[in-house]
Amino acid sequence: MTRSLTQLSLNTATLGFQWPLDRVIDACAAQGIGGIAPWRRDFAALQPAEAGRRIRDAGLAVTSLCRGGYLVHRDAAERTRVIDDNRRAVDEAAALGAPALCFVVGGLPVGCKDLAAARAQVVDVLRVLHEHAHGTEVRLAVEPLHPMYAGDRSCINTLATALDVCDAVAPDVGVMLDAYHLWWDPELANGLARARPDRLLGWQVCDWLVPTKDLLNDRGMMGDGVIDLPHLDRLVTAAGYRGLVEVEIFSDDWGRRDPAETLRVCAERWLAL
Amino acid sequence: MTRSLTQLSLNTATLGFQWPLDRVIDACAAQGIGGIAPWRRDFAALQPAEAGRRIRDAGLAVTSLCRGGYLVHRDAAERTRVIDDNRRAVDEAAALGAPALCFVVGGLPVGCKDLAAARAQVVDVLRVLHEHAHGTEVRLAVEPLHPMYAGDRSCINTLATALDVCDAVAPDVGVMLDAYHLWWDPELANGLARARPDRLLGWQVCDWLVPTKDLLNDRGMMGDGVIDLPHLDRLVTAAGYRGLVEVEIFSDDWGRRDPAETLRVCAERWLAL
Repeated sequence: MTRSLTQLSLNTATLGFQWPLDRVIDACAAQGIGGIAPWRRDFAALQPAEAGRRIRDAGLAVTSLCRGGYLVHRDAAERTRVIDDNRRAVDEAAALGAPALCFVVGGLPVGCKDLAAARAQVVDVLRVLHEHAHGTEVRLAVEPLHPMYAGDRSCINTLATALDVCDAVAPDVGVMLDAYHLWWDPELANGLARARPDRLLGWQVCDWLVPTKDLLNDRGMMGDGVIDLPHLDRLVTAAGYRGLVEVEIFSDDWGRRDPAETLRVCAERWLAL
Repeated sequence: MTRSLTQLSLNTATLGFQWPLDRVIDACAAQGIGGIAPWRRDFAALQPAEAGRRIRDAGLAVTSLCRGGYLVHRDAAERTRVIDDNRRAVDEAAALGAPALCFVVGGLPVGCKDLAAARAQVVDVLRVLHEHAHGTEVRLAVEPLHPMYAGDRSCINTLATALDVCDAVAPDVGVMLDAYHLWWDPELANGLARARPDRLLGWQVCDWLVPTKDLLNDRGMMGDGVIDLPHLDRLVTAAGYRGLVEVEIFSDDWGRRDPAETLRVCAERWLAL
């Protein structure tokens, strides 16, 4: 994993949303980081098109927009709300100039215990959104989430299942890879071999802490946990991924520290991997 | 899932080890529950052979002994300690009259980030223990644990991987199925089809709470979470499993309640499924 800082992208959740996006952009540029992946909430202070301009003007790439999602629904009314909101997410990704819109698809709909039915809902809604994205540069990126989120955050929990969903929607739908979600999976290499390089739309890193104290907000800084990140990075690179690598750390710890310090540590750890 | 109480077995962890084993045995018998699965720590007050006698005298079956485990090791000295301790576990299972000894195999050894290497250690040690169990009635039962335990509790996280390990050790090594660990896996039905009925050595149930507040001790009572237990039970039954079903709930909540109440609710929920 000989990588330069220009190959690193900052997912803005890593800094705990303590700074407005324009300040994050400037800090990334000053650090020599190559890209940025904003969240939709970053647009509260800076509209997507203007955010995209400032990012490019700072010499950074937009790697993805986080995120579309929670596509599962309990009834037709909720399906309509879900589609409306995610169409706006596609529009924002297009205005931002993001090559990919990342999807956290949602777990089980309220009152439902059928994961297969939930996955079928995801395919249904993604087909609608795929049509909406036609004519834009935005690719839909399905993110498989760790199985511990099957109940409430994502009914898609392995790369294989994510690729099944991609196959069912359209040839140009792809996946967002995240080390935190996939590191344990003995079938990961098979999944990467099955995914063509052009379906690998992003690659996110952080670390798995032992012990992990919270299911959502206890991710670790690269190097502080047990994930063999160089090994995974070699697998992803061997599968043909050539894009930047996003650091995405949801952490009550890192999200409260001085963002300048977090950014500096991200860069150091990236270069040390 | 039309089941009677005689098909239910109590894994003693469910009561939080608040009562000595003899009191748990009497309470299970009074409740009409068909079996019991002790933990090795239950033998502090009651030796395994005597415990087995009392369980059978009360009209109950022993479904398994929990547990052997943590077979991964950082060096030869630790391997020796691990083997010694697990040989004692096999001996205790034999004295108890347990048909199966359940194994939680351990996650990554200290200082190691290689899950494949950890799995190879598990196969190595299980081969030694399998030889030790020769001539007893005790079957070794490999339990796949949820992927959220890959770092610290088990490097075997799917039924498919558990069956790979069984294949590598010996034909009479089998698996312990647990709804909590396996419910999310889209490949579960394929794994059950691959496992012959005689390799299904146990079937444990509880529920997955949303939200889950702790990775270890926040399991739910059957019916309180999102797992489709009747569906899973049909899958396991269709795969040929005919044994009792263990209720195993690790929970800071249930483990502190009056054990008599917990036992009563277990029985009610089992009959309601």
